Amino acid sequence: MKKFSILSLALMCSASSFAQQALWGAGDVVSPKINSDNSVTFSIFAPEAQKIEVTGDFLPTKKVQTPMGEMDAPGATALAKNDKGVWEYTSTPLAPELYSYSFVIDGVKVTDPSSIYQIRDVASVTSVFIVEGERANLYKVNDVPHGSVARVWYSSPTLKIDRRMTIYTPPGYEKGEAKYPVLYLLHGAGGDEEAWIALGRTSQILDNLIAQGKAKPMVVVMTNGNAGQKAAPGESERGMYKPSLWEETKMNGDFEAAFPDVVSYVETNYRVEQEKQSRAICGLSMGGFHSLHISKQYPDLFDYVGLFSAAIMPPQQGVSSKVYDDFDEKLKVQFSKKPKLYWIAIGTADFLFQNNVDFRKKLDENGYKYEYYETGEGHIWKNWRIYLAEFAPKLFK
Amino acid sequence: MKKFSILSLALMCSASSFAQQALWGAGDVVSPKINSDNSVTFSIFAPEAQKIEVTGDFLPTKKVQTPMGEMDAPGATALAKNDKGVWEYTSTPLAPELYSYSFVIDGVKVTDPSSIYQIRDVASVTSVFIVEGERANLYKVNDVPHGSVARVWYSSPTLKIDRRMTIYTPPGYEKGEAKYPVLYLLHGAGGDEEAWIALGRTSQILDNLIAQGKAKPMVVVMTNGNAGQKAAPGESERGMYKPSLWEETKMNGDFEAAFPDVVSYVETNYRVEQEKQSRAICGLSMGGFHSLHISKQYPDLFDYVGLFSAAIMPPQQGVSSKVYDDFDEKLKVQFSKKPKLYWIAIGTADFLFQNNVDFRKKLDENGYKYEYYETGEGHIWKNWRIYLAEFAPKLFK
Repeated sequence: MKKFSILSLALMCSASSFAQQALWGAGDVVSPKINSDNSVTFSIFAPEAQKIEVTGDFLPTKKVQTPMGEMDAPGATALAKNDKGVWEYTSTPLAPELYSYSFVIDGVKVTDPSSIYQIRDVASVTSVFIVEGERANLYKVNDVPHGSVARVWYSSPTLKIDRRMTIYTPPGYEKGEAKYPVLYLLHGAGGDEEAWIALGRTSQILDNLIAQGKAKPMVVVMTNGNAGQKAAPGESERGMYKPSLWEETKMNGDFEAAFPDVVSYVETNYRVEQEKQSRAICGLSMGGFHSLHISKQYPDLFDYVGLFSAAIMPPQQGVSSKVYDDFDEKLKVQFSKKPKLYWIAIGTADFLFQNNVDFRKKLDENGYKYEYYETGEGHIWKNWRIYLAEFAPKLFK
Repeated sequence: MKKFSILSLALMCSASSFAQQALWGAGDVVSPKINSDNSVTFSIFAPEAQKIEVTGDFLPTKKVQTPMGEMDAPGATALAKNDKGVWEYTSTPLAPELYSYSFVIDGVKVTDPSSIYQIRDVASVTSVFIVEGERANLYKVNDVPHGSVARVWYSSPTLKIDRRMTIYTPPGYEKGEAKYPVLYLLHGAGGDEEAWIALGRTSQILDNLIAQGKAKPMVVVMTNGNAGQKAAPGESERGMYKPSLWEETKMNGDFEAAFPDVVSYVETNYRVEQEKQSRAICGLSMGGFHSLHISKQYPDLFDYVGLFSAAIMPPQQGVSSKVYDDFDEKLKVQFSKKPKLYWIAIGTADFLFQNNVDFRKKLDENGYKYEYYETGEGHIWKNWRIYLAEFAPKLFK
C-alpha cells in the first residue's frame, strides 16, 4: 500500500466542515486579534454587506430608553471595509479583562464567524476574548494543575425530580485520600448550572488561585437555582426550546427549602468534609438572595456566606414560603452562631446598591459582623468574577 | 420592606443580556420551529439585510469544484422577507435526525441569532436542531436516568504532558459498588476530546440505550487523539487561538504508543473492570485508524474493536513509528487471540469506501473474523452517530 498524502488526510475530517473552512473565505480572517498594546482588531470578510458594526462590553455603554426606564446598553461602533471585502475595526488599548462582543451585520446581531469562542448568557450567545494581565490572568487557562469539571444528576426528594449540577473538584482529588471543603456557588436569575462555569470562569479562577497558594483546594458545587427546572436549556427532555428569561425563575422559596438535598448528595457522593466550618455558600444577584435565605434557614450548615450584588429584597408579591417568614428572627439566630465570614460585595452603580446599603445598616444596627467589598460599575459578570476571586481565598482558613 | 415586582426581577439578570433580549428585536423570533409535519421553519428579523439564505445538511448537497477535485458542499436556499422585516423559509418535511445549519446574511455565514443551540465542528460553529422520531430519539435528552460527564486531566508519562479527556460514567455509577466495562471512543482528524460528546451525542445515545436495556452500563472515555495537543482549543494555556485543521493532527504513532497511559489512568481512578473482555475501542476516520493500530499494537488489551469510516491506510509519507511496523504480522497476532468483535462500518459514498473494501478483502483472505455494517452516504457525523448506536449494544455481552 502506498503511503497517503496530506490531500487524503484533508479529507478525513467531515467534508462539510472542511468545505466550510477552506472554501467559504472566512477561514483566512483572524478575529479577534489582540495586539501588543492590548488594542483589539475585529475583522470579518463580508464583501456584500452594507454596514457592519461591533458591539460589546469593551466599548463605553450608551443610554437607551426602555419601558423600564433609562438603561445602559453596550456601545457599538462601525467597521471599515477594505478593497478585499474585509471589514476591520481596532479598539483603543483595553484593560485586562474577559470581554463579550458581537458583530451587527446589516442590522443583525451575530457572533463572530471567525471565532469559535462563545459564551451563552441566558438566551443569547456572544463571542468572547481575554485581554491578558493582572486579574484577567485568573480567567485564563494557565499551565497549572487543572481540576475536573463534571455535569452530574442528583435526585431531589424535596422537589421530586432529578436535577443537573456542575461540580468542580480540585487538582489531585482523584488520586488522593484527602477530604475537601465545599463552596456552593449560585447563579442569578435567568441562569442555570452552566452560568458560573462558563461566564464565571470558575474552573480557571479556582485552578489559578489554588496553584498560587491563595485558595485552599475545595470542591465547588454549581447548582441550578430554578426549582422547577431540571437542567439548563437543551439538557433535559424539554429539548432545544427557546429559553425565556423569567419562565424558570420562580423565587418562591422552593429552591431554598430543597437545598439540603444538594448538600446531602454532595456529602454522600464526594470525598468532602461535613462540618459547618467546611461549607461555604455564595451567589450573584438571585443567587445572593438564595444564599442569604438558605444560610439563615439552615443556620448550622454554612460558616461562610457571600452575597454578590445580592437581591436582599423580600420575596415577590404574592409569594409565600416558610423560608421567607421571620426574617429578622432567623437572621438573629444565624448571627448568634457567629459565622466565620459574612461577606457582602456590590458595585456602586448596581441597581441593588441602595438595597445593600439598607441591609448593611440593619446588620450594623444589630451588631452583626460582616465584611464589605465595594467595586465600581454595576450588575455585570465582570464584577462577579472579581467577587469570586476575592471570596474564595478567604474560605476554610 | 415592600415586596418587589417582576420589573425589579427583570433587572436581576445582567443588564446587557436583558438589553440584548428585550430591546433588539431578535427576542421575538422563534427559530428554528419544527412543525407538526416535520418541516422546519427558519426565521430571522433583519429588515436591513439584502439577502438571506439558509445552508445546512437538511438540504440536498451541491457539487463544488475545489483544488482537491469535485466535492459535496451543503446546499443553500433563500429566505423570503415579509413586511415586518422577518425573513422565513420552511423546509420540506425532514427525516428524523440531528441537523446543522447556518444563515448566510448578505454573504456572511453565521449561526442563527435566535437559537442558543450550537455545536463546534473543528474550527466552525453551526446551529443545530433535532427532528424527533426513530433513531433520532436516541440523540435527544429523554426522561431517563442520566450519566455524568466529566472533563478530567490525566498525566501521560509517555508524552510527558498533562492532557484533557471527557469521561461518561453511566447512571448509578456514583452510588453503587459495581465495576463497569470501558469503551474508548476516538475522534477524527481536526477533532478533540469535545467532538464525540458534542456532535456525537455520546451521553444521550448511551443514556437512552442503557435505559432501553439495549446497552450494558459502561464508562465511555473520549480522549484527545492529537498527541501534541494538551486539550481542545481554549482549554489549555495556548488560550483562545484560532484552530487550524491539520496543525494538531500528526498521525505519527505517538498517540497510539501512549495509549496505555490513558488506560492506566482510567483503571486507576475509575471503578472499572480490568480484563480484555471489558475493554472496547472504536473511533471515526482518524480515530478508526488509531483504533486499528492501538488494538493490534496491544493485542491483549481490547476484545472489542470498532472501525467507523476508518482510514485503513498506512501512515503518511515520511512518518515512521514502531506502531506502524509489521502491520500484517501484528494483525495476525491480534486475530490469533480471537477478539470477541471486530466491527467495520462505512458509508457507500465515503471516500474511504474502497480503502475499507481492500482491508476487508485482506481480512477475508486470512480468515480473520469481523462484522461489517454498511450505510448510505459518506464521511459525516450522521453516520458516526448511527455507528455508535449500533456498536454499543454489541459490547460486553
